[in-house]
Amino acid sequence: MKCRVCRGPAVIDVRRHNANFCVEHFVKLCRDQVQKAMREWSMIQPGDKVLVAVSGGKDSLALWDILLDLGYDVSGLYVGLGIGDYSDASATHAREFAVKRGAELIEVDLPSDYGYDIPDGSRAARRAPCSACGMSKRHVFDKAALDGGFDVLATGHNLDDEAAVLFGNVLHWQTDYLGRQLPVLPARDGFPRKVKPLVRLAERETAAYCVVRGIDYLVEECPMAAGNRHLSYKEALNVVESTSPGAKHDFYFGFLARASERFQAEAETDREDLLACLQCGAPTTTEVCAFCRLVERAGGHVEPGGPAHGPQPVTLGRGPR
Amino acid sequence: MKCRVCRGPAVIDVRRHNANFCVEHFVKLCRDQVQKAMREWSMIQPGDKVLVAVSGGKDSLALWDILLDLGYDVSGLYVGLGIGDYSDASATHAREFAVKRGAELIEVDLPSDYGYDIPDGSRAARRAPCSACGMSKRHVFDKAALDGGFDVLATGHNLDDEAAVLFGNVLHWQTDYLGRQLPVLPARDGFPRKVKPLVRLAERETAAYCVVRGIDYLVEECPMAAGNRHLSYKEALNVVESTSPGAKHDFYFGFLARASERFQAEAETDREDLLACLQCGAPTTTEVCAFCRLVERAGGHVEPGGPAHGPQPVTLGRGPR
Repeated sequence: MKCRVCRGPAVIDVRRHNANFCVEHFVKLCRDQVQKAMREWSMIQPGDKVLVAVSGGKDSLALWDILLDLGYDVSGLYVGLGIGDYSDASATHAREFAVKRGAELIEVDLPSDYGYDIPDGSRAARRAPCSACGMSKRHVFDKAALDGGFDVLATGHNLDDEAAVLFGNVLHWQTDYLGRQLPVLPARDGFPRKVKPLVRLAERETAAYCVVRGIDYLVEECPMAAGNRHLSYKEALNVVESTSPGAKHDFYFGFLARASERFQAEAETDREDLLACLQCGAPTTTEVCAFCRLVERAGGHVEPGGPAHGPQPVTLGRGPR
Repeated sequence: MKCRVCRGPAVIDVRRHNANFCVEHFVKLCRDQVQKAMREWSMIQPGDKVLVAVSGGKDSLALWDILLDLGYDVSGLYVGLGIGDYSDASATHAREFAVKRGAELIEVDLPSDYGYDIPDGSRAARRAPCSACGMSKRHVFDKAALDGGFDVLATGHNLDDEAAVLFGNVLHWQTDYLGRQLPVLPARDGFPRKVKPLVRLAERETAAYCVVRGIDYLVEECPMAAGNRHLSYKEALNVVESTSPGAKHDFYFGFLARASERFQAEAETDREDLLACLQCGAPTTTEVCAFCRLVERAGGHVEPGGPAHGPQPVTLGRGPR
């Protein structure tokens, strides 16, 4: 098995590209794919301050690593979800990476900053854990990016993630979600610009990237995600990918090229209806936003303009901004 | 396990409907679902002469049986594909059903009427067998329906089939195919009206219908279909259906309700560009239609206006029309 680029010994085969790569050229492939996605979608402008949401898993650490290596001004944001040992371990991986790279890590902790954790929050709000978690993270990400003066919020969604979300959206023909499923969402009142620079990399590739780069990431999946629909969508797409390598790529990028715009009218309409949450000021379609309602039901606390005790930015590496 | 309708002993559970049924009420369920689909899409008008394409498998025999029981004027059309024992067995099942029900069966045989079979034809045309077969059948179905003066051509595509085709079309975002994927295609020059009355029944249900009705169908799948993409699409959707019963139904009918029309502009454009095949007169986008080109490459023969020796309609049951 030889590297497609240098003919040296290869360490990974990428069936989707019908090619093998050595360590050096695999790392280059990953960086090139990130740069290609960022260029194609104008994700980050020169001089932008970038905040990358970091879970301690392979995708977010690979993304942070690549953005640092490409020379971007990028800080990490870790959100403690209060999911027992899983959260403890994920925080450790995020902090260790920050120290190793001398990068700033901002931390927000749901239990200490907002008085609830995901297991309790999801029970109280009668939402599936992944739904309560996703909604909480989106809120905290947006707030941290705006409070910290960041221009861009980058998340580690990879090709497998986006293809699985797309599959879920077409399975249910969620026409409003389909209109919004883009690798970039522009900034608007109350929301930072959001970008997904890993959309051209499969999750097997981000894992391999971390391994060859010596990045110690949390391998375990979140224990609360077991059996969720998103995983069954990934499993279903893997069935197709195994007989047709490249199927996920074609599915996702074909959607962006030939179908996405057909659903954007609904997404635009939704956007026009946003108000400021009476409690926290975040953009919402209801009087009090879903985050504040969840926090209230879970017995937590959100003060006007922010949580009661913070969030407390904990900075590691190069110190406070 | 009790029947949802009469509380008598049930013979089948239909997870999608979250219900069990006895023989009598399962048969009624199937008929009702067919009638509902036909009503919703105005598939068959009173007095229409209906031709049902019959393979000898569960779907087409169930469809024929239900349409006969509902009182429609319906003949069968069997196309011999020359796929060895498989074709012999499928013909036997189609003929036996026709005799048992006293129904007319029209037969067209690719080897004797057109001088080629699917294995040779697919090799000669360098098409996948399922592609050569599908194209051949569509041509012969259309011609038989028009030659026989039928108003409607009915095929046994079930919910699993349509969901898998839809999945393939969205995986590749085949926007022209998406615009045409409807349970009814209206008649136009050179094409009969085409309807799919089984779209509200899953393949497990058509199989069960045949079993409880004592219909002896060919259980084996076509040997040439093994490993084709369509089967991997079905397998992938089964992964989702197993965790979310009803997912296939929602996928297909959600598409029809909320997405299909977004793709119809392309389908309309394609329709405007049809010409008559210089060889056989069938509608085509090229000078000579794909069927005539395949037959020619396979060393077969198509006379202007029809095949050299026929097709020879063989009628069983109630005799020639």
